[in-house]
Amino acid sequence: MTKYCYLNGKIIPLNKAGISLNDLGILRGYGVFDFLRTYNGRPFFLKEHLRRLKSSAKILNLKLPGAFKELAALVNELLLKNKFKESTVRIVLTGGRTNDGITYRKPTLFILVEKLRKLPPSVYQKGVKLITYEYQREIPKAKMLNYITAASLQNLRRRKKAFEILYTSKGQILEATTSNFFIFKNNTLITPKDKILLGITRDVVIKLAQSKFKVEERDIPLRELSRAAEAFITATSKEIVPVVKIDSKLIGNGKVGQNTKYLMNLFQDYTKKYLT
Amino acid sequence: MTKYCYLNGKIIPLNKAGISLNDLGILRGYGVFDFLRTYNGRPFFLKEHLRRLKSSAKILNLKLPGAFKELAALVNELLLKNKFKESTVRIVLTGGRTNDGITYRKPTLFILVEKLRKLPPSVYQKGVKLITYEYQREIPKAKMLNYITAASLQNLRRRKKAFEILYTSKGQILEATTSNFFIFKNNTLITPKDKILLGITRDVVIKLAQSKFKVEERDIPLRELSRAAEAFITATSKEIVPVVKIDSKLIGNGKVGQNTKYLMNLFQDYTKKYLT
Repeated sequence: MTKYCYLNGKIIPLNKAGISLNDLGILRGYGVFDFLRTYNGRPFFLKEHLRRLKSSAKILNLKLPGAFKELAALVNELLLKNKFKESTVRIVLTGGRTNDGITYRKPTLFILVEKLRKLPPSVYQKGVKLITYEYQREIPKAKMLNYITAASLQNLRRRKKAFEILYTSKGQILEATTSNFFIFKNNTLITPKDKILLGITRDVVIKLAQSKFKVEERDIPLRELSRAAEAFITATSKEIVPVVKIDSKLIGNGKVGQNTKYLMNLFQDYTKKYLT
Repeated sequence: MTKYCYLNGKIIPLNKAGISLNDLGILRGYGVFDFLRTYNGRPFFLKEHLRRLKSSAKILNLKLPGAFKELAALVNELLLKNKFKESTVRIVLTGGRTNDGITYRKPTLFILVEKLRKLPPSVYQKGVKLITYEYQREIPKAKMLNYITAASLQNLRRRKKAFEILYTSKGQILEATTSNFFIFKNNTLITPKDKILLGITRDVVIKLAQSKFKVEERDIPLRELSRAAEAFITATSKEIVPVVKIDSKLIGNGKVGQNTKYLMNLFQDYTKKYLT
């Protein structure tokens, strides 16, 4: 089946699409992106993702080449054209072609739609292990193309049989390579808010959690992990993944916690009904 | 005139060449490159550039898809095909196509050849201004694609009427966005060597300078600038560019220094005779 993508004004087959070798996205890693998924075929919090894309772009002096309404229409057109039951959508904005290797004028925008890949059920049933790594992303509030550190850590992650890498900086927990991080202490849900990318799933989870738990958005010192009863990560394609081990230490009793299960159910109910 | 490039095994017209939208180079900024120029039509220190490319690649767990000999032959073929009197050559190696947005198997290699652009003579006659900026590149010894900080500082650079941005970190001078930095104190030439990319031009200049000057490769604290009689930057396409002002402070008497002029002449003589 032909996959379709959007590139600079046109919807075309993916295998016919190519970025100029002179694009700043490729020559200088100069660009931003956002990544979302569908529930019931509808793009989940599309407007929030576009808003974040715009804000990431602004940090790099890039402008979205269209209003939210037009971009949303493009995403929906592309979803229809690709016909997956559920999809992920990656919207990428780069500095565009350059003549001198550094300055830019007209951005490149492309949109990729892929069939949603689900994680194996065991991930949610048994929970996962994370490993920590001392690193803070260069411009934490922007979702930039640069994931060199993340990509180069994949071998280490596999060797350590870890699911994700948790970035720490100066004794504080920040975020995982492509997820946000939460802990439960008793019935209080705690998650970092500074020097990280504020995930859209993170935001949904916080709002859902507030109906039952106290929620604190604040720094989490690494040493606080030993007092955490539960932990989990959130991300668009992962939803809520329970964390039962970090490096060599178990979180709580090393099993998926009750509060986390409660939130996972709440999140599932919420997405089942998502029809915006 | 059609420009030709090399992309994954083929020499093709540049306007027909495109990188897959799923390439890790574009999706994750995951890649390295090297950049060289010709003198008398011959690629200048090609082997050293290939050696550095290989070493940058290794840091990111990437492998060059060919021996130096084959890559050198490709560069030479491409130079002949493009027929510029003098050229610049950019060799880019990325993680290649990805299915899941993060893991990789087969790298993408492409080579761009452009007509050499010379800087205006006034740059060499009058010298230039730099501005300082607190930043250290993420993996300083690798020539990575990620130049987000450099590219996003171009507006500031233009506003401040500066030629280049000089990165400093914790009171030490490191390197400029795309150049190495040198100062003269009396007849001693000093240049940083740690936490920077070791330029090929930097290396040639050091070797040439040793015939007349004492050369120290060591940290340069920012405060040492006030005692520098001369300063300059080096880079492949810039060669030796005298620096007469940094932020609001003049270097020496604010004129191009005698030792710098001597090195510029020496470098010019050397490159005039370059026929390897």
